Amino acid sequence: MTDLPRGMADAIRFLSMDAIARVGEGHPGTPLGAAEICTALWTRHMDYVAEDPLWFDRDRFVLSAGHGSMLLYSLLHLTGHPGMTTEALRRFRELGSPCEGHPERAPGHGVEVTTGLLGQGVGNAAGMALAESFLSATLGPDLVDHRTWVLSGDGCLQEGIAHEVAALAGHLRLGKLCWLWDDNRMTDDGDIALAMSEDFAARFRAAHWHVQEVDGHDLDALDAAMALAKRDPRPSFIACRTIIGRGLPGVEGTRAAHSARIRPETVEAARAARDWPHAPFHVPNALAEAWAQAGRRGAGKRDAWRARVAALPAERRRELDRVMEGRLPAGWADGLRAHARDVAARAHGDHGWKLSGDMLERAAAAIPELLCGAPDLEGATQHKRALPAFTAADRSGRYVHYGVREHAMGAMLNGMAAHGGVVPTGVTYLVFSDYLRPVLRLAAMMKLPVVHAFTHDSIGIGRNGPTHQPVEHLASLRAIPGLHVFRPADAVEAAECWELALARRNGPSALVFARQPMPAVRRDAGANRSAEGAYVLREPQDGRDVTLLATGSEVALALAASDLLAAEGVRAAVVSMPCWELFEAQPAAERTAVLGAAPRLGIEAAARLGWDRWTGEDGGFLGMTGYGASGAEADLWRHFGLTPEDAARAAKALLG
Amino acid sequence: MTDLPRGMADAIRFLSMDAIARVGEGHPGTPLGAAEICTALWTRHMDYVAEDPLWFDRDRFVLSAGHGSMLLYSLLHLTGHPGMTTEALRRFRELGSPCEGHPERAPGHGVEVTTGLLGQGVGNAAGMALAESFLSATLGPDLVDHRTWVLSGDGCLQEGIAHEVAALAGHLRLGKLCWLWDDNRMTDDGDIALAMSEDFAARFRAAHWHVQEVDGHDLDALDAAMALAKRDPRPSFIACRTIIGRGLPGVEGTRAAHSARIRPETVEAARAARDWPHAPFHVPNALAEAWAQAGRRGAGKRDAWRARVAALPAERRRELDRVMEGRLPAGWADGLRAHARDVAARAHGDHGWKLSGDMLERAAAAIPELLCGAPDLEGATQHKRALPAFTAADRSGRYVHYGVREHAMGAMLNGMAAHGGVVPTGVTYLVFSDYLRPVLRLAAMMKLPVVHAFTHDSIGIGRNGPTHQPVEHLASLRAIPGLHVFRPADAVEAAECWELALARRNGPSALVFARQPMPAVRRDAGANRSAEGAYVLREPQDGRDVTLLATGSEVALALAASDLLAAEGVRAAVVSMPCWELFEAQPAAERTAVLGAAPRLGIEAAARLGWDRWTGEDGGFLGMTGYGASGAEADLWRHFGLTPEDAARAAKALLG
Repeated sequence: MTDLPRGMADAIRFLSMDAIARVGEGHPGTPLGAAEICTALWTRHMDYVAEDPLWFDRDRFVLSAGHGSMLLYSLLHLTGHPGMTTEALRRFRELGSPCEGHPERAPGHGVEVTTGLLGQGVGNAAGMALAESFLSATLGPDLVDHRTWVLSGDGCLQEGIAHEVAALAGHLRLGKLCWLWDDNRMTDDGDIALAMSEDFAARFRAAHWHVQEVDGHDLDALDAAMALAKRDPRPSFIACRTIIGRGLPGVEGTRAAHSARIRPETVEAARAARDWPHAPFHVPNALAEAWAQAGRRGAGKRDAWRARVAALPAERRRELDRVMEGRLPAGWADGLRAHARDVAARAHGDHGWKLSGDMLERAAAAIPELLCGAPDLEGATQHKRALPAFTAADRSGRYVHYGVREHAMGAMLNGMAAHGGVVPTGVTYLVFSDYLRPVLRLAAMMKLPVVHAFTHDSIGIGRNGPTHQPVEHLASLRAIPGLHVFRPADAVEAAECWELALARRNGPSALVFARQPMPAVRRDAGANRSAEGAYVLREPQDGRDVTLLATGSEVALALAASDLLAAEGVRAAVVSMPCWELFEAQPAAERTAVLGAAPRLGIEAAARLGWDRWTGEDGGFLGMTGYGASGAEADLWRHFGLTPEDAARAAKALLG
Repeated sequence: MTDLPRGMADAIRFLSMDAIARVGEGHPGTPLGAAEICTALWTRHMDYVAEDPLWFDRDRFVLSAGHGSMLLYSLLHLTGHPGMTTEALRRFRELGSPCEGHPERAPGHGVEVTTGLLGQGVGNAAGMALAESFLSATLGPDLVDHRTWVLSGDGCLQEGIAHEVAALAGHLRLGKLCWLWDDNRMTDDGDIALAMSEDFAARFRAAHWHVQEVDGHDLDALDAAMALAKRDPRPSFIACRTIIGRGLPGVEGTRAAHSARIRPETVEAARAARDWPHAPFHVPNALAEAWAQAGRRGAGKRDAWRARVAALPAERRRELDRVMEGRLPAGWADGLRAHARDVAARAHGDHGWKLSGDMLERAAAAIPELLCGAPDLEGATQHKRALPAFTAADRSGRYVHYGVREHAMGAMLNGMAAHGGVVPTGVTYLVFSDYLRPVLRLAAMMKLPVVHAFTHDSIGIGRNGPTHQPVEHLASLRAIPGLHVFRPADAVEAAECWELALARRNGPSALVFARQPMPAVRRDAGANRSAEGAYVLREPQDGRDVTLLATGSEVALALAASDLLAAEGVRAAVVSMPCWELFEAQPAAERTAVLGAAPRLGIEAAARLGWDRWTGEDGGFLGMTGYGASGAEADLWRHFGLTPEDAARAAKALLG
C-alpha cells in the first residue's frame, strides 16, 4: 500500500474534477494543485473529528482561496462530515447544495467561514488563532489548545489585508497559526511574473514568522514542514511549491488550469494518466477507508478533552458551557443601564465617543470574554481604559493594539466570532468603515455576532476636515443586508443600543457615535425604546402639524427646532430613529403610528439616500449634499445649514 | 552662515508650532520631526518652481501622512506658493483657509492631492510615478522627466494598501518614485512596539526596492541618500530615523507629540531652547530669502523645458497641449457610437462585460493616453484586448496588470488623474468596489476624472454565489457625493454612459455592467438619452396605469413585464434610469414628467435603499432583500422572484 497517500490525494483530485466537469464550471487549479498539501494536513496533522464538527477544541481550517472550494468539499466528504454526501458533491454549484461556488459558513458541515473575497480568510484565521490563544490563557490549556491552518494562493498574498495580517500575527506571535501558501506561480491573468515578483519568504521573515519552503507535491516534505511549524513558537508560513491543476494533462501548469472549463476528454485523459479507473465520484474502498480513518484523527484527543470537561467543578463547567455557547452572563447589561441613568440625571451630556467607551467599559466588566481594540485610536476613542493589552507576552489581555490596520481587525473580528468563545468588538472612526466594508458584508452573510463602534460620525468632528467627516457612511452601512446600524442620540440610547448590539447573537451591529457632546434627550431609562427602531420622543398634546425625524446628534437639534416651532405655534413631533432595520421589522401599523400623517422632515448630518423611505414624497430632508469642510465645529453647523433655526425653517417650508 | 540649513528646518518647525498652538489643535509630530527631511528635499533635490505650481514637468510631492499638514503648508509658504500667505497659516484649520486640517487638493497652491486617510497618499504617488513613466516613454523624456516624492509615517506603512503599492511599484520598477519614511517609532497609541515590529527595510528589499536607512535629522546624510535614490533604477525607500515632535521640550519623542494640544509655555520653551527669538509666524530675512531661493530651484529646468516645448512642431505642440490640459481628441466617441449601432441592429445582446470592453477598446483606440487595468481579471472582464502591457521593460504599455490589488489600483488611478496627461480607467467586479470605497470618495472629493468599470453586477453572475453577487453596492456607490454611477441597459446605453463618463473631466464615474447577456432595449443611437439620467423608454399610447422604473439588466425585464401587463390590458410605461445623479440634476418638471403620475414600481436586482426617492410612498420595489445564492443563473432569478412574471404581479398589486 505504498501508493495509499498518493491515492488519497488523487481521491481529492478526481472528486473535484468530476464535480467541476459535471456542472461545467469551477476552479480546478487549487483542488488539484493543493491535493497533497491538504492530504498531509488532514491525515497527519490536523486534529478534528469529522462526525463531531462542532467540537470546540478542534483545529480550525480556513480555505482562504475560496474559489478552490471543491478542495474543501472533497476533504469534508472523504473524512465523513455530516451532510457532505456524494449527492452534495454531484450538486456542486446547484441551488440548495451545501457545496456552493465559494464556501459558505456552515460549521455543522465543517465549513468554518465564508471565503472567496481574497485576503479575508487569512484575516479570519488570524482572528481564530487570537481567540484560541486568549481562551487558552484564560480558560486554561487543558480546555483550549488547538491550531488554526489556513491555505491561500497568490491572490490572498497580493491583497493588502494579507500584509496587515502578516505584520500583526508576527508581532503578536500567534504561534498556533500556520499559513500554507499554494505557490503555483499562476494567476487568473497568467504567469505571476505579470504582476508579482515579491520574495514572500523574506517578506514573512521581516514580520517575524517561521518560514519554510517545500515541494508542495511531496507528502513527506510537507509532513516534516508541518511538524516543524508546530514546534516553532512563531506563526508559520509554509511556501508550498506546486503545479496548478496538477493531474489535468495539457492543462496543468497553465493559465487555463485556474478556472477554465474542463472538457470531458481531459478528465478521461487524467484518469488514464494517473491510473484512476474509477467511475465519477467513486472512491475505491481502501482509499475511502483510509480517509474515513483520517476523519477520526482527533477522536482520542476529543475524548480526553470531554473527560476533562466532565471532571470540571460544576461552576467552572457552567461557565465553560456559557462561553462556548456564546451566552452572555446574567445581568450583564445592568451596568450600562445604571450608567445611562446617572448620565441622564446630569445637566450636560458627554462626548459621543466617551458614551460609547463608558458602555463598553461596563459591558467588558460584566463579560470576561469580551475583547476590544481600536486601530491606533485608543486616545481618541477611549475604549481601552483599564483593559490589559493582548500581547505576545500576555495572552489574557483583552485589548488588541491592531496598529493602523482596520481591514485586518475587521476580518479578525469575524474570525473570532466564527471561532466562538469570545465576544469581539472593534472601534474606529466612522470614516474608516470604508476600509471595513468587505468584512461587514461577510459578517452579515455569516450571521456573526460582531459589534463595531464607529465614532466621530459627521461634520461635528470639526477642524480635521472632509477627509475625516463621514457623509455617505450611514447610508452605505444601512445598505448592507443583515447589518444593524445604530445611531444613538444620548446616554440612554447609547446604553440601549449597545445592549441590543451585544445581545444580538445572529448578526453584526454597527454603533455610530458623534464626536461632540450629546446632551440628554431622554431622562427615563426604563423600557428599551431603541428596540423599536424608532419611537415618538416628543408628541405635541393637541396633534401634529409636522414630524421631525432624526437620529444621533440631530435628535437634540430636532428637539430644539421643535421648541422654536412651538414658539411660533407650529406643533412639531420629534421621532428618534436609532435603528432603521429594527423599525423596518415593526408591524406596518406601528410604523405608521410613529411616522404620523403630518408632513415629515428627516434631519441627519449625512447624505439623503434612504431617507425618502421615511419622509415620503411630500416630506423633506435636511442634511448634507456634498462633503464637509475644515473649520470650527460651530462654524460648520452654520455653514452647512444644520442648526435648529434651519430645521425650523425647513419644517415651515413643508407646511407651505 | 553654517547654521542656515538648521535655521531653514527650524523655520518649518516654528511656523508649524505657531499655527498649531494658535488654533489649539493639529499634529505637531510630523512637521517638527520631518523638518530636516523636507528641508533636504525641497532645498536640494526637488525640482519645482513655487510661483509656477502647475508647470507640468515639476517634481510631485505627496504628504501621505496628511495629518501633519502644517509641514506642507509651511513649505508652500516658505517657498512662495501662490495664496500660501502668513495670513493663510494664521487661519490654519479655520473655515475657508487653504490650510485645512488635512491637505486638500489645490494644485494652484501646490497641494497635489487630498491626503489624510492613511495609505492613500503612497498609492497616489505610485500612480503619479506610473503616469510620468508612461508619458516620458510616449511623449519623450525631453518633455516629461520628473520625480515623485512621498512622505509617510508608520501609519501609512501599517495599512495594507501600502504593501500593495510596495509590491507593485517594486515589480514595475517605478524608479523615479522615492518614499521617505518618517521613522519616529511613535504612534497615536504610543510606542510602535505596541503594534509594530516589522523590519521595513527587509520588507521593501523583498519587493525589490532600493533601501537606505539614515538619520532623519542629519541634513547631509539625507542629502546623500536622496542623491543615491535618484541614481538607482529601482524605486527608493529611505527610512529616516527621527524624533517625533522634535524641538518641543518635554514633548518631543513622546506620545503627546503626535497630536496633543501644545501649550503656549511649551512653544516659548522651544523658542528659547532652539535660539529662535522671532515673533510667531515671523521668519527672519536670511532664512526667508534662502527659502524663497529654494522655491525657484526648478526655474532653469522649467525654462529649458518651455524652450523645448516652444520649439516643437506645431502638431506635436498641439497634441502635447491637449494631453496636458486633459482634453480628449476630436471625434473620440465616434467609434463607441458606431459599435452601439452595430450591436443594436443584431438580434442578440452581448454580455455586459463584453459591451464594456468593446467600448473601452474603441475609446482606447481614439485616446492614446488612456490607460486601463483590471486586477487579475483580464480574462473575465476582457478589457485588455490588444493593449500592450505596461511593464518594467515597456513603459509605453497601456494596460497595467495590477495583480489582486484593487485598493492600490484605485489610489493609483487617483494619482494618475491628479498628475494629469493620462486618462485613467480601472476595471473589476462590482463586489470589489467595497475594496475601493476610500479611493472613490477621495476621487469625488478631489473632482478627479477617473473612470471605474464594474462588471458582474448582480445575482446574474450565477454559481459563484453570494460572496461575489453584489446586492448593496449600487446603493452604497450612489451614496458617495460627486460620484456618477451609471448602470446601462444595453449596447446603446453602454456607449452613451461610457461617453458621459470619459467626457466628465471634473469628477469620477462608476460604470456598472451585468455579467449576463444584455439584449437591446434601444435600437436608436442618436441623441444621448442617458445624459438625462432617466428617460421614458416605452410610453403606452393611451396613458399609463403604472410606470416601471428600472436600470441595467432589469430594463429588459421591465419591458418583458410591460408586455405581459399589456396582454392583460394594463398600460405600463417603462423608464430606464441609467444615472440617478444626472436625473437628480434635471429640472423638477422634467423629472416629474418622466416619473409620471401613475403608481411606480422600481425594479433592480439590488437593495431597496434609495429607491423610495423615485417610487414614492405609494409605489413599490422589486429587488433583493438579502444576499444571493450559488446556483444556475436562471434558477436564481426565479428563486429571488425577479422574473417578468414577478414584476407584472407586483405592478398589478400596486394597482390594488
